[in-house]
Amino acid sequence: MRPLIFLILFTSSFLNAQVPKDSSAAFIKNIYRQCYTEQKAYQWLTTLTKDVGHRLSGSPEAAKAVEWAHGVLDTLGLDKVWLQEVKVPHWVRGKSESVIMLSKDVGAVSLRALALGNSPGTGNDGVRAEVIEVKSLDQLKAMPSESVKGKIVFFNRPMDEGLSSTMMAYGMAGDQRGAGPVAAAEKGAVAAVVRSLCPRLDDFPHTGATHLSETGKNIPSVAISTNDAEVLSKSISHGPTEIYIHTSCEMLDSVISYNVIGEIRGTVAPDSIIMVGGHLDSWDVGEGASDDGSGVVHSIEALYRLAHSGYKPKHTIRCVLFMNEENGLRGGVKYAAEAIRKKEFHLIALETDAGAGVPLAFGCTKGADSLIDKHITYIKSFMDLLDPYYLRVEAGGGGADIRDLTLDSGLLVGLRPDNARYFDYHHSDNDVLENVHPRELESGVAAITSFLYLVDQYGIGL
Amino acid sequence: MRPLIFLILFTSSFLNAQVPKDSSAAFIKNIYRQCYTEQKAYQWLTTLTKDVGHRLSGSPEAAKAVEWAHGVLDTLGLDKVWLQEVKVPHWVRGKSESVIMLSKDVGAVSLRALALGNSPGTGNDGVRAEVIEVKSLDQLKAMPSESVKGKIVFFNRPMDEGLSSTMMAYGMAGDQRGAGPVAAAEKGAVAAVVRSLCPRLDDFPHTGATHLSETGKNIPSVAISTNDAEVLSKSISHGPTEIYIHTSCEMLDSVISYNVIGEIRGTVAPDSIIMVGGHLDSWDVGEGASDDGSGVVHSIEALYRLAHSGYKPKHTIRCVLFMNEENGLRGGVKYAAEAIRKKEFHLIALETDAGAGVPLAFGCTKGADSLIDKHITYIKSFMDLLDPYYLRVEAGGGGADIRDLTLDSGLLVGLRPDNARYFDYHHSDNDVLENVHPRELESGVAAITSFLYLVDQYGIGL
Repeated sequence: MRPLIFLILFTSSFLNAQVPKDSSAAFIKNIYRQCYTEQKAYQWLTTLTKDVGHRLSGSPEAAKAVEWAHGVLDTLGLDKVWLQEVKVPHWVRGKSESVIMLSKDVGAVSLRALALGNSPGTGNDGVRAEVIEVKSLDQLKAMPSESVKGKIVFFNRPMDEGLSSTMMAYGMAGDQRGAGPVAAAEKGAVAAVVRSLCPRLDDFPHTGATHLSETGKNIPSVAISTNDAEVLSKSISHGPTEIYIHTSCEMLDSVISYNVIGEIRGTVAPDSIIMVGGHLDSWDVGEGASDDGSGVVHSIEALYRLAHSGYKPKHTIRCVLFMNEENGLRGGVKYAAEAIRKKEFHLIALETDAGAGVPLAFGCTKGADSLIDKHITYIKSFMDLLDPYYLRVEAGGGGADIRDLTLDSGLLVGLRPDNARYFDYHHSDNDVLENVHPRELESGVAAITSFLYLVDQYGIGL
Repeated sequence: MRPLIFLILFTSSFLNAQVPKDSSAAFIKNIYRQCYTEQKAYQWLTTLTKDVGHRLSGSPEAAKAVEWAHGVLDTLGLDKVWLQEVKVPHWVRGKSESVIMLSKDVGAVSLRALALGNSPGTGNDGVRAEVIEVKSLDQLKAMPSESVKGKIVFFNRPMDEGLSSTMMAYGMAGDQRGAGPVAAAEKGAVAAVVRSLCPRLDDFPHTGATHLSETGKNIPSVAISTNDAEVLSKSISHGPTEIYIHTSCEMLDSVISYNVIGEIRGTVAPDSIIMVGGHLDSWDVGEGASDDGSGVVHSIEALYRLAHSGYKPKHTIRCVLFMNEENGLRGGVKYAAEAIRKKEFHLIALETDAGAGVPLAFGCTKGADSLIDKHITYIKSFMDLLDPYYLRVEAGGGGADIRDLTLDSGLLVGLRPDNARYFDYHHSDNDVLENVHPRELESGVAAITSFLYLVDQYGIGL
């Protein structure tokens, strides 16, 4: 047994001094009331989206977001607020993209497009070539290289809208954006076009990261709107179609940035950490309101609620606003590395990076062992206090920024909001404050605050 | 024991031929897929809102809605489609309202207002009087009549936004609109102004029915927007404030209208009915998209799904589109009276009249006896098939149009969607198609269809 775990077990007798469940029910009811009536998260989201705006890693806006977040955490009455240095990639879009379909059917048609993050630019002359359409990476891989060489590959498999989870549909279509361009480059393609990862037919292109090739073979890559993907596909079905792409994006030198962290020190087991976090960076379009401004303000208000309710947590409650989730995960990697170096124990790490929809569940996974069912059973013994709010606890979940927190850790948890609307906005100009509903956002805050409180009170059955 | 109940118990052995749960799980998964990919309800809601529009009882648009609904049901391949005659009140708004605050502070300010349904008009000269503000009917009742006589009473208790259910907050504030004007009239007031039943501060007035006085003492009554309620309250707090109201609404002679009904005949117990319904009428503002266009198309697509999946129900599955829920409930009353007259047995009557939000639960009550807990326990034994869709079954629920269906009835059930957004739109110009999300609407259809299927397969534990 590691000394740290021993210490935690030793302190468990102090932790067992639990408040009765009806007191907890009243505490939670009051948390909900405060969230709905004060709407602090919505106010913070308003300043983050309207005063800071979008904030891609390495950008001046990302630096401003760090300053903003540090300033907000400083006002909450926490025990400690600090910055954790992170070196982040600095990719820039440059001038707007120009993507023109040259069709025998309909002539030259401009397609609504956004370069994919990490993608190189085309150079001044742009790229012009015939397009070939594929529905999957497997289909591309099965093609002879000579039929791909010199062409532009168009990945056009829609998200499966028949699934009840758009998050799952996103995961199943996402290889086209992530791995597609590199796979096309390896076959000799000169550029890649990807159908936006959006379940609706609309006019917004949705960007996102594409993988950097290990061999350096990267080609200009853009996402086009789902409506334009239909137009392009139709043209190809009628005969050979060319596309002209001009992008001026480029990867600049890495930049020093920061995770922003604040905590309330635990009164009984201060070395045992209950963490909540979202990511501060966003794509360089829209306002990053749902992705992940909502997770940022969920996390901030959760700490504010606990601090301002006069609650004295047993464990240390910490808020982490990660930098660079979108195109590098450097913030999450750094946070986990530091936690491991300092031998920090995370009883819970809760990530909220799935938007501001109606919260439905907390999905839990166990990093260090396979006892998740035991923990879920234990947790459910008090999580019935969340029944009135239509919330449940279930197995499976976590998040990109906390996934490295496996060593000596407790439970990794992901907030699961309803996701009917999330991918309408995700990574696009459509991700703005106006698409976040204040009460739904605050329901997320109240759910998270209540979850943190309950775990602090009743533990996870260690 | 009544003969009808005996017959039902007798047929229960046939009903017990149940499909295995994993087959039901696959059936339900397919229902969800079909709803999300085909989006029939959203297409029907588009024609109902954009081609028919709002449709207050007695109006030409309500007649058009009956024709539209009958036409749609006729295309579904049902066994029977019919109209059930209902005599409905015919209240008309007439010309737009003019409500002007005359304040010592700021002079004449026009307030955004809608006359309340059933309210009489002011006559050509309008009404002008000093306003007194109250927060409750009790406060009004405690006032001496001489301080109310000749005045305009302003009911200004906001919906309690601290509650996690806006539906509950609506219920708790609703007496002001329903019973307030009559109570003010009885004290000698000349008109009533009601703060809109909306949880947000915005500029939309929200109408709705006010009670008709049994003594005939009705006064002109209007709802003003929540923002304008704040303006008016502030003026009153600074000193005496008058209001001028001009409305030209009136109650005309009753009109013949219809409930629209369709059914799939049961193959084993055709005399046992599983009913789903919403109301076809709406207020005469906006498009009645959430209230209750969504319930109408939920119900229509539920029957379409069952009919087009080739499913042969054991029980009769019936869709009822009620007329006149908003200002009279004549459709619900007539349907129940006819059901009682014909000795129809309703195993389930499910009402969907709470909007198109993310569906969370089915709330069940028992009309004829108090065995609801037994039924809930039984139902939960198969409703875990809805767990993957974050749906639950719980006690409590029903709806206005089915509440008279108590005699010999099974369970009254209400669909409970998340209601964070519902009262932003309710009874206002804001209740339009654009405020309904296609996937959320279709989640409601899939939930309802699955619920009907499960009850048809496994019963309710009679």
